[in-house]
Amino acid sequence: MRLASLNQGRDGRLVLVDAARATMVRARAATTLQAALDDWDRLAPLLGAEQALLDAGRAEGAEPFRAQDCAAPLPRAYQWADGSAYVTHVELVRRARGAEMPPSFWTDPLMYQGGSDGFLAPCADIPAGDPAWGLDFEAEVAVITGDVPLGATVAQAAAAIRLVMLVNDVSLRDLIPHELAKGFGFFQSKPASAAAPIALTPDELGPAWDGERLHGPVLSSLNGHLFGRPDAGVDMVFSFPQLIAHAARTRALCTGSIVGSGTVANRHGDPAVSGIEAGGVGSSCIAERRMLEVLAHGAPRTPFLGAGDHVRIEMLDARGRSLFGAIDQCVRASAATDTQYRVQGRTA
Amino acid sequence: MRLASLNQGRDGRLVLVDAARATMVRARAATTLQAALDDWDRLAPLLGAEQALLDAGRAEGAEPFRAQDCAAPLPRAYQWADGSAYVTHVELVRRARGAEMPPSFWTDPLMYQGGSDGFLAPCADIPAGDPAWGLDFEAEVAVITGDVPLGATVAQAAAAIRLVMLVNDVSLRDLIPHELAKGFGFFQSKPASAAAPIALTPDELGPAWDGERLHGPVLSSLNGHLFGRPDAGVDMVFSFPQLIAHAARTRALCTGSIVGSGTVANRHGDPAVSGIEAGGVGSSCIAERRMLEVLAHGAPRTPFLGAGDHVRIEMLDARGRSLFGAIDQCVRASAATDTQYRVQGRTA
Repeated sequence: MRLASLNQGRDGRLVLVDAARATMVRARAATTLQAALDDWDRLAPLLGAEQALLDAGRAEGAEPFRAQDCAAPLPRAYQWADGSAYVTHVELVRRARGAEMPPSFWTDPLMYQGGSDGFLAPCADIPAGDPAWGLDFEAEVAVITGDVPLGATVAQAAAAIRLVMLVNDVSLRDLIPHELAKGFGFFQSKPASAAAPIALTPDELGPAWDGERLHGPVLSSLNGHLFGRPDAGVDMVFSFPQLIAHAARTRALCTGSIVGSGTVANRHGDPAVSGIEAGGVGSSCIAERRMLEVLAHGAPRTPFLGAGDHVRIEMLDARGRSLFGAIDQCVRASAATDTQYRVQGRTA
Repeated sequence: MRLASLNQGRDGRLVLVDAARATMVRARAATTLQAALDDWDRLAPLLGAEQALLDAGRAEGAEPFRAQDCAAPLPRAYQWADGSAYVTHVELVRRARGAEMPPSFWTDPLMYQGGSDGFLAPCADIPAGDPAWGLDFEAEVAVITGDVPLGATVAQAAAAIRLVMLVNDVSLRDLIPHELAKGFGFFQSKPASAAAPIALTPDELGPAWDGERLHGPVLSSLNGHLFGRPDAGVDMVFSFPQLIAHAARTRALCTGSIVGSGTVANRHGDPAVSGIEAGGVGSSCIAERRMLEVLAHGAPRTPFLGAGDHVRIEMLDARGRSLFGAIDQCVRASAATDTQYRVQGRTA
């Protein structure tokens, strides 16, 4: 199935999309994706039958499908657990600042608890915030799970994967060092993320989905120029079932939980020729490109995002169709800057 | 209003509770608390009228109210942002290990992103997990907000407070050092939290709520013995509006967001006589008591929780009524231990 949520109400309006990503029909078995996930075993076959009718050109009430009309597949979710499974990316960031990466990072997943209460629509503007915050995008793959029991095995986790999608994990790079130094992890440095419009059941992906990883280049563009095309199936050290089992080690996960891969990244060779212009795979975020620039030139050259910049993230199938539809966002100047931020506790 | 959710379905069944916390009636204007919060301006007056009928003894269909029948007020929520506003507690933890606390902790709130997808019911068992995890309780005050805009001022944040409640922020102390050392904050070390059954609108609290903080002792008991009674209104360095504004600095918060105070703690004098047995206010978690034991005796004496232990957390009003109802949980041996945990990435 190809599921999307029209930008209506707080939870969207569930629709099914045809193979050409050109036509849709409003789902009848469930009006929201969360409602479908809440009763998946009963509703998925009904939605599948509606999908088959649409695909056969026999659906009543078919309408044009436009990504601009969509919210994120889950406009608000109950859980957003974001891994950092492309360890080569973490290693590169450390190398650029002359630090060793602990060897345990190859065997023990990094994961942070994200805020799930508001995902940006695929074509929604990204609020620029304060220019000093260092706005960046991160192209990621994510899965939506069913209910995952506490202490789930990797096999149980694999069986709980319901849907696959793409995420732009918006990050505020210059808020991260101060926030992580406080020891409690990311909060302000991870504002609302965006998601591509179409969430796919694994069967839609054919050989691009092996049950553990998604394969194929994730294409990121900045202001119309290709920025990165690393393969999501390469160098993903922890599989999605492993990431889900990590998240469920000490707590159950509710159906509709979104589990992310972290920034998609492939191992770079010589930093001087690994950039996309030199024929390399490039990067899925500006921070990684800046690290490569530091290693090649001694200093970063690519600025972080500012008002007016345009980010596009998508994956194409063998026929050149946009698998999940595109994340296609402009950065918009926003009133929210630190001139408004006046939290000051009592002094000791 | 006094709102609770019967333990029915994924989101509970909204009920209104009488002043004696003895009788309830199923709400008509909304069937779930999240639905009420989603359309609060329209529904709150209708729910208020239903509350008035119940309080006047004229509600149809009134039933006995029992905490054991309840889920958490929001059994699954979209956002759980937990502050650490009782800085004296953080300072004590640092002092016990001989570390200085950064002075910025008095002016810049500590907050972590919690997992919101599953709150334990007030009388639900706490899964013990692996004995090596160091299971602890934390008695906290929390508020439930309406929609909070990105970059909200403290005044806007104050106006967005809809409900006040109590939380048991279950923590796995011995997983924390390794997890925080990885730099991404809490994840596995913060399993599902529990909440007291009744969420109160601020007007229910009278002088105990000053618009910024809740006043009065938070009573924690362990196996029937009083463990702590610190006053929630004392030594709370950051107010709830400040914590909410901190959470909304770079992102909007969805209605139904839960924002916590962190472990309630009052400043201790001489560690040797600050324990509850010596007439002190005691502690709202075992970890703090262990720190006091380290300072007084050189080593901790109180063990963390194990199967069969019993935790009770509540607040009483001037007449001795349990304001929010009690969190009343037993620790249950659980199958989820690390014998099942088999996440291992590829080696480099």
